[in-house]
Parts: sequence; C-alpha cells; structure tokens
Amino acid sequence: MSDIGELQTDEKTFLEPYLPQHACNTTEHETDTSRSRSSDCLDSAAAEDSDLPFVTLTYACSLDSMIALAPGARTTLSGPQTKCMTHFLRFRHDAILIGAGTAATDDPALNCRYPGVTLSDQPQPVIVDPNGRWAVQDKKATRLAIDRAGKPPWVVARHRTTSADPLEAVGGELLLFEQDASEALNASSISWHAILRALKRKGIQSVMIEGGATIINALLALPDVVDAVIITIAPTFLGQGGVAVSPLARGDANGRVNAAWLQQTCWRQFGNDVVLCGRLAS
Amino acid sequence: MSDIGELQTDEKTFLEPYLPQHACNTTEHETDTSRSRSSDCLDSAAAEDSDLPFVTLTYACSLDSMIALAPGARTTLSGPQTKCMTHFLRFRHDAILIGAGTAATDDPALNCRYPGVTLSDQPQPVIVDPNGRWAVQDKKATRLAIDRAGKPPWVVARHRTTSADPLEAVGGELLLFEQDASEALNASSISWHAILRALKRKGIQSVMIEGGATIINALLALPDVVDAVIITIAPTFLGQGGVAVSPLARGDANGRVNAAWLQQTCWRQFGNDVVLCGRLAS
Repeated sequence: MSDIGELQTDEKTFLEPYLPQHACNTTEHETDTSRSRSSDCLDSAAAEDSDLPFVTLTYACSLDSMIALAPGARTTLSGPQTKCMTHFLRFRHDAILIGAGTAATDDPALNCRYPGVTLSDQPQPVIVDPNGRWAVQDKKATRLAIDRAGKPPWVVARHRTTSADPLEAVGGELLLFEQDASEALNASSISWHAILRALKRKGIQSVMIEGGATIINALLALPDVVDAVIITIAPTFLGQGGVAVSPLARGDANGRVNAAWLQQTCWRQFGNDVVLCGRLAS
Repeated sequence: MSDIGELQTDEKTFLEPYLPQHACNTTEHETDTSRSRSSDCLDSAAAEDSDLPFVTLTYACSLDSMIALAPGARTTLSGPQTKCMTHFLRFRHDAILIGAGTAATDDPALNCRYPGVTLSDQPQPVIVDPNGRWAVQDKKATRLAIDRAGKPPWVVARHRTTSADPLEAVGGELLLFEQDASEALNASSISWHAILRALKRKGIQSVMIEGGATIINALLALPDVVDAVIITIAPTFLGQGGVAVSPLARGDANGRVNAAWLQQTCWRQFGNDVVLCGRLAS
C-alpha cells in the first residue's frame, strides 16, 4: 500500500501549465492527469525540437531558504500534500536528477510512488557524481531496481573516477564526461548543457532536477536551460548554519542586482506549505 | 493623491484573524475594515490584559530569505498589492517599530498612507537605537511629523547615548533603558520585554515590528512576545551576500532542531508575491 495519495483535480490544474507536455512512457494515466496541452502552458513544443530536454527545477525549503539543518543532515520539510505533489511530478517526468552529495546523505528511493504507477512509468534516476562520491551498493535506489520497483540508476561521472562494473551489474549505466571549466557545477565541473544533451540523445524528453543546493544554485543562473521552477516552502525556519539555496550574487561596481527572477508565477497553499510555480527570467 | 489603494474585502478577511482586535485611535474605518472579533482570531483579549502590547512581526523577503541586496542597500521587494497591505497593517496598529540601522539606511516615512487615514489614525513611529546611530534631523519621518502627516518619532535608547533635545524639538520622545545582558537584541542589548512593557504603559496596545534582520531574527526566537507573523515573499532571489532573515540555530550535541516554527498558518497570493500569516510555536 502506497503512502502517497492522489492529488486533487484543482491541484493538478494549478501545476499543469508548468509541466512537460510531451507524451510519456505510458498512456495509462492519460485521462486523470489531463496531459493535453493547456492554452497557457509553457512552450515545451520548442523543448521537443531542442537538443535539451524539458527541465523542471524543484525543491522544498524552509522560510529561511534552507533545505537541510546542516550539511549531511537529512531534514524533512514537506508536509503530506506536497509529498504527494513530488511523486506526481516524478510521474510526469522521464528522469529525476540529483547530485551525489544528496544521494549519499539522503539515500533517496528516487522512484515514483504515485498511485497506479507501473515500472515503465518510473522515472529514470540520474545521479551527477563528478568526484566519484556515490557507490551503487547498499542504496535504496539500487534495491528498488533489483526488485523492479524503480529503474536502475545512471551515474554522470568525470573521466574514470567511477567504475562502471557495479552499476552495470544492476542494469545501470555510467555516463562519462570531460571536465568543463566554463560552467560552475562545482569545483570539478561538467557542463550542464553536455549532461542534458546526452540525456536527450538517450531519449529523455523531460528531467526533474531535485537538488542539492549546489546544483539548484548553479541552475538558477541558467534560464536558457531551466523551463520551469516548482518550489515548496514549509512554514518553519531551520536557522543559521543550515544548507541554503541562494544563487551567486550578480552585479558590478555600480551595485548588486537580483541574482534571479521568476516570472509567470503562481502560488498555491498545499496543506501547511505553499507551492510556487514559475519560469526563470532571462 | 495617495499611491496606496484599498485592499479587497477578501484580502482583509484573510488578514483579520492575525490582527490586533483592540479599539484603535479612531472609529472612522470601523465598517469597512471589520474590526469586530472573528471567531478564529488570535487571543488578543489576553494581550489587552497583559503588560505587553499585541506584537505583529512583519517583513518582505526574497525566495532566498533576503531583505536587502547588501548591508545598507535599500532594496524594493514588495509589489503594489503587498505595499497596500503594509499600509493597511500600519493603519491597524498603534505603533510601528524598526531598528536604527534600517531607519538610517532606508529613511522610511514610517507613516500610514492607507486611504482616508487622519493624523490621529497614524501609527506611532518607534526607532530602537541602543547605540545612538540615528539622528532626527533631515529624516522623512521628522519632516512628516512637522507637516502633521505622521506622528513625531519615539527613540528607544540606552543610557544617554542620544540627546533628547533635537527629538523633543519636533515633538518626539527619548525612551531610556538600561542594557540587558540576558537578551540578544544586539551587542548592546535592551530587553524586548522592557521596551514593549514601556510602550504598553504609554498606551500602545499594538505594535508592528518591521525590521531589520537583526531585530527580526531576535524576535523569531521569542514566541512569548510575538502574537502574529506576517511575511511577504517576492518571487526573486537576491543572491549570496544579501541581508538574510534566519534565526540562530538551536540544538545540542544530539543534533540541531528547527530554529522556529509557525502554526495556524495561512498563505495567499497578493499580486506576484505570497503572504504568509501565522503564529510562532512555543
């Protein structure tokens, strides 16, 4: 029995304009999730012609924009309704992408537990691990793949910092990239364009990027890559010293300017939390 | 002609349970602002019997919980609708309190421009200035007091760091306190209880505390003092290095816990922003 309930119709209606509109792996949920393009939806037809997938950046934070109490501390923020939303969003994307730090700290299942979802509906887990920090053994996502309750993970790695063998043993894949100094993914950077183009070439039409903070902060500065932003804010303060979402400041000698803006914004209360949908202004 | 419009009825209904319910200085707006106690309003009858006024903590921040791009940088965050809300809130409180740093940086008018407001409706400006940083001369609030478009400010000071003469010349008052080492207002602290008790003794039944970050962070840790919290969040990221609202972390050797929680929360979209109303959990 899943711990995840269905979203209400008005909750789905609220999210719909910000979701990828391509045909997904299955048509099973066609009726109740109304995948037809709405008149005010984001232009994901363009994304289908593009060499990049539709990218949704999504995370849950506190009122002080923290996603965790401390580095490495697993922290629950979302209430039951926004947890259902997360699984609905996973159902509506071809892939989920997270960083190796979050994958190591939270050991997330990285599957979709939305009611009625089959193995072919499951999103492809993608772990970005440029420094070889994540091991496939003894992980929830690995066990779920073996149990056929999720897809085997793909790991994005740099050079040969990670061995492909254990991953391939469970059906996963190692995607290898060169370091790219032109974009700040982190100290040992791989280009986001390169990663996302590679996912598109492998048939991924849409990817939901869930964290952690280093990845979110980097992508908030890339409006040409991110199609939609969906943020859950819980009515709590984690406090100073937590892991903060806040992009690098912008500006020059004449003064700072806002680091990023959202446009086409809509807010909706989900339980005690609020959800904000929008697009990054370029 | 005021730049501030009236709030819509449903916006007032949203705010009402979180507002002080005492009789204010005037009855002019009695009908359209529905000051009658609503069944689910906060217990401000208790506040009237208490030696403290009803305290509303309110501020506007970015998605990354910043109230300014940099220390000393005046930053506009609220849209037109939440600006109207701020003036409605000022109309509904006997006093507005801010710190001397914010008073010096922003030089705010500290008056209420809600439509139809008379001088007797104006909230009493209170500036907390333990280190004698704020001077009454050449300030917007002072000019408004001289022009009878606002009340002359009261300044909360420590020892005799500030001279009363220039303030009294425009009809203001200097409220003197001893330093209190038991509460962290800042390095040269005055007890919040002492300040608020003194305001109540002077007839202030309700006070709206608007910032800056040092004061907000201190008060988020005092649920016995704060009756309501009203936060506006604008859909923008100011970026790293901004002035952040985030209270001090709590916790012990066994781990951190959330620094503060809000309960009885309600969220509502105002223009592009969202407004959160709630109470601090004790």
